[in-house]
Amino acid sequence: MAFPEIPTARDKLLFTPGPLTTSLTVKQAMLRDAGSWHDDFNAIVTGVRERLVQLAGLSREQGWECVLLQGSGTFGVEAVFQTTVPPDGKVAVCANGAYGERMVQMLQHARIAHEVLRTPEDTPVDPAALEVLLARDKTITHVATVHCETTTGILNDIEAIGRVTRKHSRAHVVDAMSSFGALPIDFPACGIDYLVSSANKCIEGVPGFSFVFCQRAALRACEGFARNLSMNLLDQFKGFEKNSQFRYTPPTHAILAFDQALRELDLEGGVAARGARYRRNHETLLAGMKRLGFRSYLPAAVQSPIITSFVYPADPRFDFPEFYRRVADKGFILYPGKISQAATFRIGNIGRLFEADMRCVVNAIGETIVEMGVKL
Amino acid sequence: MAFPEIPTARDKLLFTPGPLTTSLTVKQAMLRDAGSWHDDFNAIVTGVRERLVQLAGLSREQGWECVLLQGSGTFGVEAVFQTTVPPDGKVAVCANGAYGERMVQMLQHARIAHEVLRTPEDTPVDPAALEVLLARDKTITHVATVHCETTTGILNDIEAIGRVTRKHSRAHVVDAMSSFGALPIDFPACGIDYLVSSANKCIEGVPGFSFVFCQRAALRACEGFARNLSMNLLDQFKGFEKNSQFRYTPPTHAILAFDQALRELDLEGGVAARGARYRRNHETLLAGMKRLGFRSYLPAAVQSPIITSFVYPADPRFDFPEFYRRVADKGFILYPGKISQAATFRIGNIGRLFEADMRCVVNAIGETIVEMGVKL
Repeated sequence: MAFPEIPTARDKLLFTPGPLTTSLTVKQAMLRDAGSWHDDFNAIVTGVRERLVQLAGLSREQGWECVLLQGSGTFGVEAVFQTTVPPDGKVAVCANGAYGERMVQMLQHARIAHEVLRTPEDTPVDPAALEVLLARDKTITHVATVHCETTTGILNDIEAIGRVTRKHSRAHVVDAMSSFGALPIDFPACGIDYLVSSANKCIEGVPGFSFVFCQRAALRACEGFARNLSMNLLDQFKGFEKNSQFRYTPPTHAILAFDQALRELDLEGGVAARGARYRRNHETLLAGMKRLGFRSYLPAAVQSPIITSFVYPADPRFDFPEFYRRVADKGFILYPGKISQAATFRIGNIGRLFEADMRCVVNAIGETIVEMGVKL
Repeated sequence: MAFPEIPTARDKLLFTPGPLTTSLTVKQAMLRDAGSWHDDFNAIVTGVRERLVQLAGLSREQGWECVLLQGSGTFGVEAVFQTTVPPDGKVAVCANGAYGERMVQMLQHARIAHEVLRTPEDTPVDPAALEVLLARDKTITHVATVHCETTTGILNDIEAIGRVTRKHSRAHVVDAMSSFGALPIDFPACGIDYLVSSANKCIEGVPGFSFVFCQRAALRACEGFARNLSMNLLDQFKGFEKNSQFRYTPPTHAILAFDQALRELDLEGGVAARGARYRRNHETLLAGMKRLGFRSYLPAAVQSPIITSFVYPADPRFDFPEFYRRVADKGFILYPGKISQAATFRIGNIGRLFEADMRCVVNAIGETIVEMGVKL
């Protein structure tokens, strides 16, 4: 069961929402030791921050910044709440999956007042309900939404949510963890104040840090709110401004890998080309799985190209742990974490995966179903 | 100024307290993509946790655990405060440098009551003063100390501090960031309740996570205290217990590197052998720098073998930024971050550095001094 000492021809492919299968060149960028205080590394950090702002279609001249933060994506989302919600602030969380619920847990931990607007897992967040809530509760200062809920792969309409939020002059916090870099996001149209993503998603870097887009002036207005030093985004930003450095030890190797990953995103043709590849991956997967007799969980209209949920076959011979293990033994790691309330499993379409890989995983699933004697 | 695209013969050597120069084999362990939910990766996480407990001279049978946490070492220290201090708790911080002061900032952010016991930067924390404080203030629940203050390289007597803390039945929190793995630490003798270190220090891994040693029962008694979800060490521990997994995306590559680094620590002969190498590094450095005419900042009795502070030469031709740049151009990165209140610079002795490397850096410094016309 140990991670094989002698690498096989290649690692198993990861059909997960991240950590992902990354390119060899991205990983090879980590074969260096950079001094975290030295100029050449600082120049990379500055370059990464600037390129992210450009990638988001924003500009520093118009007041936008990108703040990098050590830890996983969850740390980035929590840092936004911990830093930007005033002591008497209140957050409305639009939740239709595990990541929305995780925001609620963050607010509970921070003893920040909040309200949860829930829709079922297969139903996008409802802007009309938000409208009613914001009109009724003037104490709400922030609205938080998950763009692509990887619990199911559902896409929430952050533009509609943003319109309502902006109309009521509240701050809009978007968790775009698994969408940024692959799906176009129009910041002004979505009325986004804070958007969080992480290194090991659609940019196809390795895990180690998240990044938060925000407006300089808005962040500066949060002085004194932060409840946590490491997650104090304002101080983190001030640190970057002061000397281009992380305040505390950065994941130097993950940054070098990300720098290379950004280069490879450009080479591929940017966000549009990457999103198109993921969409082809999704379509190839969906068509193949349907041919096998699997049913996808979400209606096509709300399905993202990032990750796809499939309903467990009704045949009692279908046992997910065995199914997962057999597919893994063939070299393909599905996403075993069943966090949805529905009996589904998930297959990710992102990372260094191509249509041919999607056909391979479908074939492996087909063989596994036959081995297990499952009728679809 | 950009990080060289085409690697030179080797990267500049890092004479810093971390991120460090690591072995090539440690970095090569990152040329893999592991599924963070898959069994083989989980087995590595479990193995790392168990080997750390052994390395600390502790045992799980006697109730000890090691909890890994994403982020830098600072995140680990802050997580202890955020998770284990009750709402009406109070922390006495023993501070004689920047890392002690950083603990104070953490407590300020969390609005946790605290008291600071300061000694000058060249003077170890004073157990007698702590004794007086604890006898006077019964509301203090935790005492926090930094083992090796890398601000100067001073070693604090955590055994004496621990005796006083234990006598008064308070919890003892130790920041052993730059000492764990190289200096022996007797947990019972030091009355340690929580000890924090990180991946990129004396174990010689790459940055990406910290680890916290604690007793299971004590941690379990902290239910409900946590002020932060990502930093909730109790929930993080429960996650490891439940399915051997990190709750949120782990830095998979940094974990694979650390697994290899632990193997290489064993091969070197464990903590004693590694500590001896660092001590030889320190002695070689100190002797060489004294020959050049530099004066070390700390008295030998309180000097750690981890990092050494040198007083700026009195000659006005000595300009640290120029000195630093010239030594860097020769292939040696000193520690530029002057955080001490004294006019000193620091040279680290840890990482994949050997006596020959210390002689090389001394020679480079000697040449630089001549180039700059500085008289010592």
